[in-house]
Amino acid sequence: MRIIRTTRGLQTWRRRQDGPRLSIGFVPTMGALHDGHRSLIRRARRSCRTVVVSVFVNPLQFGPAEAYRRYPRDPSGDLELCREERVDAVFLPASDTLYPPSFQTTVTVTALSRRWEGAHRPAHFQGVTTIVTKLLNLVRPTRTFFGQKDYQQFVVIRQLVRDLDLPTALTLCPTVRDADGFALSSRARRLTAAQRQRACVLHRALLAGKAAIAGGARRSRPVETRMAARVNRDPPDGVDYLACCDARTLEPLARLRGTVLLLGAIRVGAVRCIDNLIVRIR
Amino acid sequence: MRIIRTTRGLQTWRRRQDGPRLSIGFVPTMGALHDGHRSLIRRARRSCRTVVVSVFVNPLQFGPAEAYRRYPRDPSGDLELCREERVDAVFLPASDTLYPPSFQTTVTVTALSRRWEGAHRPAHFQGVTTIVTKLLNLVRPTRTFFGQKDYQQFVVIRQLVRDLDLPTALTLCPTVRDADGFALSSRARRLTAAQRQRACVLHRALLAGKAAIAGGARRSRPVETRMAARVNRDPPDGVDYLACCDARTLEPLARLRGTVLLLGAIRVGAVRCIDNLIVRIR
Repeated sequence: MRIIRTTRGLQTWRRRQDGPRLSIGFVPTMGALHDGHRSLIRRARRSCRTVVVSVFVNPLQFGPAEAYRRYPRDPSGDLELCREERVDAVFLPASDTLYPPSFQTTVTVTALSRRWEGAHRPAHFQGVTTIVTKLLNLVRPTRTFFGQKDYQQFVVIRQLVRDLDLPTALTLCPTVRDADGFALSSRARRLTAAQRQRACVLHRALLAGKAAIAGGARRSRPVETRMAARVNRDPPDGVDYLACCDARTLEPLARLRGTVLLLGAIRVGAVRCIDNLIVRIR
Repeated sequence: MRIIRTTRGLQTWRRRQDGPRLSIGFVPTMGALHDGHRSLIRRARRSCRTVVVSVFVNPLQFGPAEAYRRYPRDPSGDLELCREERVDAVFLPASDTLYPPSFQTTVTVTALSRRWEGAHRPAHFQGVTTIVTKLLNLVRPTRTFFGQKDYQQFVVIRQLVRDLDLPTALTLCPTVRDADGFALSSRARRLTAAQRQRACVLHRALLAGKAAIAGGARRSRPVETRMAARVNRDPPDGVDYLACCDARTLEPLARLRGTVLLLGAIRVGAVRCIDNLIVRIR
């Protein structure tokens, strides 16, 4: 009889029961796939034998029903992109497949979900962590791929995976940008050309913050002032936040040190855009 | 490329990746093992090639810290019983192994957790569903075994497994009782002989309710009155509830029909005892 006292020990014992090692890469998406998703799929393709993509606009992570209904959808374009990338399986469920009427379970990551996107979109991350737990249990991937654009989402899911001992490894992949620096986003399909032009001020503001740090700034206040000044030169229709925080805990930092996250959310027309940069301070 | 639209379809596709079918039976426990646990382990032994038992007193499912500290513990007796039953692996983690300081995730099954035990032990089922999710992710059993004594717990976990698509089958096993009908319980180790004697009034009250139904009662009120009358003949130190409900939804029933659960919780000294009976009405 084996007596096991650590989670690591149990995971090792359990993997030994599995027999030959699987290699399943998973890219969870909400569809309206773009080159950012394509880069995640290619990254999965490079390191995994089998690649699974899910396409599901998750109602739980939206506030007002309208935002959920307006989220862009393009199932035939999505399938075409997946075919081009030689994806092995695409999971395209209907909403009531994943949430039948009796559904009543929520998964919550508390501290990391509170700030930034969590503060502006109540219950958003609870919706994210609930659907991600479901998808990870269904797909049971050896490795799951996320884009840096949704950095807080990645940090929340990393905590979820640790806390619930979900048996998958995570890989964070670089944000894919247009020539003008705008972070690719499904929501951007709903921007007019002029709005799209204006939306790239977010990335420019983050770059101004990064430049301030490169220029020697070591406190949040002047960096945030620089980002605000940049955004105000080409003001969008709203700024939800534009800030510096600790990249690991997501807590605001008075004094900048270690790995710093510059992050922002703005509104252009009816579309919210988010973006971030990671800056390492030596 | 496979296009999959149902969870069933995805689970089937995913199992095919696994290769040869595993057969891992799991009995999660809080230790202080007794013949009720032994019967679960034997049931697992009969239907699974590999049997895993976990022994962990889960702090999250206790209210006041004192109740957690007072819960009976007997690790050497537990290991002996597991050895006798030829268990393959015993998971005996320390509390901070499963809950490191950064831990911040909760899993909640809402409606089914509200009544009965949930009403008397706030946050109890949230603790249960959180630890069970962790243990199922760590052990990844093909089948998990629960005792009917904790019937509400089973119904909550069944909902959890469905809602989060946890890849395990569940088996509910009959309550094991002493000669006088008392449902075996780790907590009962803390009863004196005289208290233990008095505690069996709970089972007798449930039997009185069952007899009332057998005698033709088809409404909850007279059945509950009969159970209360029986308990009052040998009153314990407190009665938390003694009721009839729908065995599937756990909602109170005015008119009895289908599968009815008679359930109760009493206090004897500092120990809470729970029990239940399932009655099928044709």
